[in-house]
Amino acid sequence: MSPLNNYLSNISSLSDLKALNDQELHQLTDEIRSFLIENISKTGGHLASNLGIVEMTLALHSVFDSPKDRMIWDVGHQSYVHKILTGRKHLFHTLRKYKGLSGFPKRSESEHDIIDTGHSSTSISAGYGMARARDLKGEDYSVISIIGDGALTGGMAFEALNHAGHSNTNFIVVLNDNEMSISQNVGGLSSYLNRLRTDPAYFKMKGDVENILTKIPAIGKAVFKTAEKAKDSIKYFLVPGILFEELGFTYLGPVDGHNIKELKLVFKRAKNIKGPVLIHVLTKKGKGYTFAEKNPDKFHGVSPFDIHTGNTISAESSRPSYSSVFGKTLVQLAAKDSQLVAITAAMPSGTGLNEFAAKYPSRFFDVGIAEQHAVTFAAGMALNGMKPFFPVYSTFLQRAYDQIVHDVCLQNLPVVFCIDRSGLVGNDGETHHGVFDISFLAHIPNITLMAPKDGREFEEMLSFAASHNGPIAIRYPRGESDDFSEVSTNYSIDQMKAEVLMQGKDLCIIAIGNMVRTAFEAAHKLQSKGISCKVINARMIKPLDEDTLLQECMGMDHIITIEDHVTTGGFGSLVLDLFNRKQSLQGKKIKSIGFPETFIEHGDVEELMAQYGLNVEGLTGSIRELLDK
Amino acid sequence: MSPLNNYLSNISSLSDLKALNDQELHQLTDEIRSFLIENISKTGGHLASNLGIVEMTLALHSVFDSPKDRMIWDVGHQSYVHKILTGRKHLFHTLRKYKGLSGFPKRSESEHDIIDTGHSSTSISAGYGMARARDLKGEDYSVISIIGDGALTGGMAFEALNHAGHSNTNFIVVLNDNEMSISQNVGGLSSYLNRLRTDPAYFKMKGDVENILTKIPAIGKAVFKTAEKAKDSIKYFLVPGILFEELGFTYLGPVDGHNIKELKLVFKRAKNIKGPVLIHVLTKKGKGYTFAEKNPDKFHGVSPFDIHTGNTISAESSRPSYSSVFGKTLVQLAAKDSQLVAITAAMPSGTGLNEFAAKYPSRFFDVGIAEQHAVTFAAGMALNGMKPFFPVYSTFLQRAYDQIVHDVCLQNLPVVFCIDRSGLVGNDGETHHGVFDISFLAHIPNITLMAPKDGREFEEMLSFAASHNGPIAIRYPRGESDDFSEVSTNYSIDQMKAEVLMQGKDLCIIAIGNMVRTAFEAAHKLQSKGISCKVINARMIKPLDEDTLLQECMGMDHIITIEDHVTTGGFGSLVLDLFNRKQSLQGKKIKSIGFPETFIEHGDVEELMAQYGLNVEGLTGSIRELLDK
Repeated sequence: MSPLNNYLSNISSLSDLKALNDQELHQLTDEIRSFLIENISKTGGHLASNLGIVEMTLALHSVFDSPKDRMIWDVGHQSYVHKILTGRKHLFHTLRKYKGLSGFPKRSESEHDIIDTGHSSTSISAGYGMARARDLKGEDYSVISIIGDGALTGGMAFEALNHAGHSNTNFIVVLNDNEMSISQNVGGLSSYLNRLRTDPAYFKMKGDVENILTKIPAIGKAVFKTAEKAKDSIKYFLVPGILFEELGFTYLGPVDGHNIKELKLVFKRAKNIKGPVLIHVLTKKGKGYTFAEKNPDKFHGVSPFDIHTGNTISAESSRPSYSSVFGKTLVQLAAKDSQLVAITAAMPSGTGLNEFAAKYPSRFFDVGIAEQHAVTFAAGMALNGMKPFFPVYSTFLQRAYDQIVHDVCLQNLPVVFCIDRSGLVGNDGETHHGVFDISFLAHIPNITLMAPKDGREFEEMLSFAASHNGPIAIRYPRGESDDFSEVSTNYSIDQMKAEVLMQGKDLCIIAIGNMVRTAFEAAHKLQSKGISCKVINARMIKPLDEDTLLQECMGMDHIITIEDHVTTGGFGSLVLDLFNRKQSLQGKKIKSIGFPETFIEHGDVEELMAQYGLNVEGLTGSIRELLDK
Repeated sequence: MSPLNNYLSNISSLSDLKALNDQELHQLTDEIRSFLIENISKTGGHLASNLGIVEMTLALHSVFDSPKDRMIWDVGHQSYVHKILTGRKHLFHTLRKYKGLSGFPKRSESEHDIIDTGHSSTSISAGYGMARARDLKGEDYSVISIIGDGALTGGMAFEALNHAGHSNTNFIVVLNDNEMSISQNVGGLSSYLNRLRTDPAYFKMKGDVENILTKIPAIGKAVFKTAEKAKDSIKYFLVPGILFEELGFTYLGPVDGHNIKELKLVFKRAKNIKGPVLIHVLTKKGKGYTFAEKNPDKFHGVSPFDIHTGNTISAESSRPSYSSVFGKTLVQLAAKDSQLVAITAAMPSGTGLNEFAAKYPSRFFDVGIAEQHAVTFAAGMALNGMKPFFPVYSTFLQRAYDQIVHDVCLQNLPVVFCIDRSGLVGNDGETHHGVFDISFLAHIPNITLMAPKDGREFEEMLSFAASHNGPIAIRYPRGESDDFSEVSTNYSIDQMKAEVLMQGKDLCIIAIGNMVRTAFEAAHKLQSKGISCKVINARMIKPLDEDTLLQECMGMDHIITIEDHVTTGGFGSLVLDLFNRKQSLQGKKIKSIGFPETFIEHGDVEELMAQYGLNVEGLTGSIRELLDK
C-alpha cells in the first residue's frame, strides 16, 4: 500500500474521519482526489464537480453527524465524496453500471442518502420540508441542503428560499459557488455572486461601517436622524449577501471552499445560528486535476479517459450523435432563416448548440437552469415573429409541462421542442431516462409529435419543423444516429406520413424512433424462421398517420407496437385508440411493447433494453408468443 | 346620461384617453370603478384586483401606445380596466359567459391582448422574449409586463428576472404590490417588499448618503479607502429595491399606485431608461369599494352580489361543495393523526383550508404561489414522517409535474394530492379547466389515482389516503358535492374496488367522478325506452379495479366510458388498454366519451358540458348511436 493511501484506506466509518486533524484531513483530500481520478478514468462519471467539493464534503462530515444530521445534495452528481466517506468506497468500480453504485444519492444504498435526486434545484424545498417536520416532532438535528450556483437559477430554489427565509426554522443552505452550471453560469444572480467574489468593498464594508458608526456618532446621527434603527439598518445594507439577507437568511461568506479549517469554522458557526442560514462557499470545479480545471465542462460528466493526457478513451464512432446532427442542421437552417433562434437551459454542449452559439451569438439564448422560463421566453419570441428551437433533455422538459400547455400550445405558437435523450440514457438512471414525454405531451391540444428512425430523417423533421406553423416536438435518443439510407427510399415527411420499411403478411410491427432498427432486425431474423413481418416506421406520434396505419394493417390479425417509453399513455395506447375509434379491432390482436410503469434503473442501455424485452431478442420473443396464441 | 358618466362614455379609443388631463383622468377613475362594481355585481368576476389597478391602467395607456407598445398582464384577471379602455366596454354584460367576453386577456378578442393568460408568474418570461425578438428585428417600442407581488413568488418569475437582469435589453416590469396573492401574501420576498413600503430609512438613505459622502470626503475616504468605486458602491447599497438592483434591474419606486400624476411621471421615466427597469407600485386591492377593501380575498373572484350590502346573491345550495367537504374531513383526520399536515400554494380559502389553518396553525403551510416548491416541500416532510395533504386546483398542479415524478413518486412517498377543480370550472375558461390531470399523472409509477362519485365517497377516499403508504391523488370537481346515499349501499373503498351502481344487460357505462351522476340519469332515462344499462362507478382510475370491470363487462357487447377529461391518455384509454391486455375486446365495442383535444372555452359548466355531449342528453345520444350500429 502506498503511503499516499494511508488515511483513505483506514477510514471505515465517519468516526474515523472525525478523529483526523486538519493536517491529516488535508492529506486525505489528495488521496480522495487520486481515488476519484483513478476510478472515474476507468468507469466514467461526474468528475469535475466532485473534485471541486472534496474539502467541503470532508468539512461537512467532520462538523455534522450524518445520518442524524441530514445532508441533501442538490442534483446529486457531486455526492461521490460523500459516498466514499459513507462506506461505499469499495463499490466505485461498479459506478453507474447495471446493479452497481448509482451516480446519484439513493436511499436504497445508504442511510446517509436522504433523498433520491438527479434533477436540479430541489434540495432547498426538500431540506426545508424535513426541517419543518423535525420541528413538529420536537427533534433536534441539523438539515443541510448543498446547492450549486447553477441550480440556484432554477425557480423552485427561489420559491424555497422565499418560503424558508420567512421562518425562524433552523436550516442550513450551503451554496457551492463554482461559477458554473454544467457550462459557464449565466444571469443576474451569477453576476451578483461574482460581485460578492471579487469586489473587496463587499467584504470590507461591514466592519468598516460598524466602526464608523461607533466612532462618529454625531455624523451617524446627522445622516440617519429620522430612522430609529439607523445603525442596524445601515449595517444590514452593508453586509455582503444582501440578496439572501433580504429574503430572511443569515448570510455567511464567502468562504474559501478549499480551506478545510475555514470551512469547519463556518459550518460550526452556522450550526449554532438560529433561523435559516446561507453559507456561500467558493470552489473551483475540477480542482486538483489540471485537465478538469481547464475544461470543467468536458469533465463534468466524462467517459473513461487517459489520466495523463485527459483524452477520452472511446471507440471511434462512425456516425454522428443525434445531438450533433441537431446542432449541424440547426446552423444550416439558421443560415436560411434569420428568425430562427435557439434557446438552451444551461446545456449548450450537451444539446449540440456550441456551433450555433459561436456562429449566431445574438440569436442564441442560454437562460440558466430554468426550463420553465425557457419555454415561456420561447413563446414570447414566437409571438413576436421568431422561430424558437429549444433543444432539451426529455427528463428536464418535464419541468416545463405547464408552460408547454399554457404558454405555447394554448397560443398555438411555432415553438420547436427538440427532445434529446428520449428513451433510456443509460448510466444516469432513474432520474434521467426520457420515458414519459409522449404521455405528458400527446394529450395537449395543437402539438405535433414526431420521432425519426435515423439521422437523415431527423434532418428532414427539423427542416419540416422550421416551417411548421404551430408547436412541434421531435423526440430522439442519446447517442449515435442510425442510418437506414440503404433501405429507406422516401425520406420526405412533408405529408406527415408513416413509412413501410419492410413488407410482410403475418404480423405488423409499428415502431418509433430507435425502435425501428430493433423492429427491422427482428423482422429479418424472423423471416429466416418463416415468419413474415411488416415493419412500419410510424414517424408521426401525433397526429398519427391514420390512413397508412389502418390501410397497412387491414387484414392483419396481429399488430405489435414498440416504443422506448412507458406504455401507459404512450405510443401504443395512441395506436390502440386509433384502431378502436375506427372499429378496426375486430379479429385483431394488438400488443403494445414498451416500459412498464416503473422507474428504470441505471446501467448500459443495451443491458437495460434487454432486461425489459426491448431488444431484438425480446421483440422476436414477444412476436412468437403473440403468434403462437 | 348621468354627469358622472361623461368621460367613460366618451372614450371610444385610446386617443380619447390620451387627450384627458390629470383632473379628468381622476374623474374617469371614479366612473370606471362604478362601472366595474355595477357590472361585476351582476355578472360576477374578478373585482378587487381590478379596482386596485384603475389608476395604473389609465396611466399606462396614457404614457404608452398600445398595441405598438406591448402590455402583458400576469395571470390576467386584472385586465378588465384594460379591456374597458380598448373597445370592449359594451361587452361587459357578457363577461365570462359562454361566447361572451373572457375574464382574461385573449388574443382573439383584441389586438391589445398580447398573450392569452390565466396562470401566474409567466409575464416576465413572455415579455422578455418579446423584447429580445423586437431587438433582433430592429424595432422600437416598449414591452411592459405587469405582475403582482403574489405572482412574483412563483419561481419562473425569478428565472425570468435572473435572465432579463443580465441583459441590456429595454424592458419594463411593473410590480403591482398590493401585499396579496388571492389571500395575504407570504414569504421572505413579501417581508422585503413590506420593508420597502414601511421603513422610512429605505427611502431616505439614498439622498442622505450622497450628501454625507460629498460633505465629509475625509471620512468617506477613511471608510472606503480600499475601494475605488466606493461612492458608487455605497450608493448602490443604499437605494431601495436592492434585491432587484442586484439582479440587474433599475429599480424605481415605490410609487403610490392611486396617484395618476405620479404614475405617469414614473412610467415616462422608465420609458427612457436603458436596460431592464422594475417599477414598484403600491396599490390597494379593492380600492374604492368598502366591502372589497375590507375583504379583498372574498372579492377577488366573486359571484353576483348586492352592491349596497356586499352580500353574494346566490341560490342557497343544499349540499356542501367538494372543497368544503375536503376542509371539514381534513380537520377530522388531523384530530386523529398528529402527523397530518396541510400545504397550500396561496389558496387557503379556495381549497377549503381555512378551518384547518385556524385549528392547526403549526401544521398548516402556505408556501406562496409556488406549486413546485409545495410538492417537493411535501416530499421533504413525508421523508421525515409527516403525512402531507396538498389541495390544489388541477390546472395549477400542472406546474409541479416534474416534482410529482422526481420528488414524490420516485421516492414512493405518502403525499396526498387533492386535485380540486378537476373537470370544467366554467367561467374562468381555457386556462383554468382541469381536464389534463389523468393524462399527466396516470403514467407515473407508484401513484394511486381516484375520483369520488359524491361527498361521502370523497370522505372515505380522504380517510383511505391518510393511511395509504404511497403517493395518492384524488380528483374532484368545482361546486356542490353530489349525494348518492339513497342508492349506493357500500361506500367502503378500502379494497380499492369499483361499484356497480345499477344493473343492466344491454350496455355497460363505466364512469368516474361527476360523470357517475350523468351515467346514472342517462341509464334511468334509457330504461324507460327499453334500453337496459349497467352503471359502474369506477372509483379507481389507477390502478383500475380490473377484476370488477372485466367481470361485470363479461358478455357485454357494448361499453361506454365517460369522463370529464380529455380522452387522449384519459380514463377511457386506460380502460381500453385493460380490455386489450386481457384480450377481452373480441366481440365488444368500446366507446370513450370525454373532451376532444382542444382547449375548452369559458361559459357555464352545464352549457359547456352540453356542447361537448357530456350531459345526460349527450350520453343517451351516444349510447343509442352505439347500440344502433
